[in-house]
Amino acid sequence: MTPERTAVALLHHPVLNQQGRRVATAVTNLDVHDIARACRTFGLDAFYLATPIAAQQRLVERILGHWSTGWGASHNPDRSEALALVRLVPDLDAAKGDLATRHGSAPRVVVTSARPAERTVDAAQLRSDPDPEPGRPLLLVFGTGSGLADEVLEAADARLAPLEGPTPYNHLSVRSAVSIYLDRLFGR
Amino acid sequence: MTPERTAVALLHHPVLNQQGRRVATAVTNLDVHDIARACRTFGLDAFYLATPIAAQQRLVERILGHWSTGWGASHNPDRSEALALVRLVPDLDAAKGDLATRHGSAPRVVVTSARPAERTVDAAQLRSDPDPEPGRPLLLVFGTGSGLADEVLEAADARLAPLEGPTPYNHLSVRSAVSIYLDRLFGR
Repeated sequence: MTPERTAVALLHHPVLNQQGRRVATAVTNLDVHDIARACRTFGLDAFYLATPIAAQQRLVERILGHWSTGWGASHNPDRSEALALVRLVPDLDAAKGDLATRHGSAPRVVVTSARPAERTVDAAQLRSDPDPEPGRPLLLVFGTGSGLADEVLEAADARLAPLEGPTPYNHLSVRSAVSIYLDRLFGR
Repeated sequence: MTPERTAVALLHHPVLNQQGRRVATAVTNLDVHDIARACRTFGLDAFYLATPIAAQQRLVERILGHWSTGWGASHNPDRSEALALVRLVPDLDAAKGDLATRHGSAPRVVVTSARPAERTVDAAQLRSDPDPEPGRPLLLVFGTGSGLADEVLEAADARLAPLEGPTPYNHLSVRSAVSIYLDRLFGR
């Protein structure tokens, strides 16, 4: 597993809200920035921002435009470099398809959730395990809101174990969770 | 070193701007939330939010009020629980003083920076090293903007090694950096 063949996907649908209902969430500006910067730091291939909502797609295009050709590009080139990793897609399937095209084979899809489950893989295992199908890209999938809907969790090839500290509190922001998983997988 | 005797301080002054000038930065709402949630997850004692600017202090008080007694408190108790760790202070000295009062001895102050330096300690060392003065609380200090001013770095008892991925890019958000350091120190 190498960062050059790994991408993050951040889904805004289908995800759960606090009441456990399936919803589409709004894009948070700092998710785009923080996760792009983390992906750039750890050498990832791409950061797929997935939202099916046209108005939200236009918002993301505006943010990215500001940093790729607008004032931000000349003012803060480090930020532009990170945001150049962002690829706007409508959904997870589009992210999988794009990553497959870029690397010549369908990705292994690894989902994340703050909820415990049977048959999870922890980051240390994923980091050290030789890929059963070498050369296959890896897509790490994160959910906004209160996390990925069951259908996404169930359709994945593997599920990362939840992040845990010494307390039972498990409400990290998705920005924090992505950062910690990438560090565990590719840090140092 | 235990999380129960450890606190994070996030300084908004004296920090550097992109041009390397000493400035006071504005408080970012998501810094308050993300870092409080990470501190809560990893079992820390407190999160000191330090700003010398009266108008910014009032802003933070409004945010905290919303989540401690306002609508947010009943709507999202998990968030309230995290934000209860936040202690608003004017500067680092006030954070040190408060932590000393809470624990009965002056804290060991450990600073962070994305810039490499001689004589840094890495998180694994700090995690496993027995405290030279057992029982002393630990204060982990982070800078907003482009990082802590030299005077803060130089006055500290120790400096954590910069976070590094497999690339030379070193522009993580402070939210990501706090999350990763806390995971390295207290995770799993």
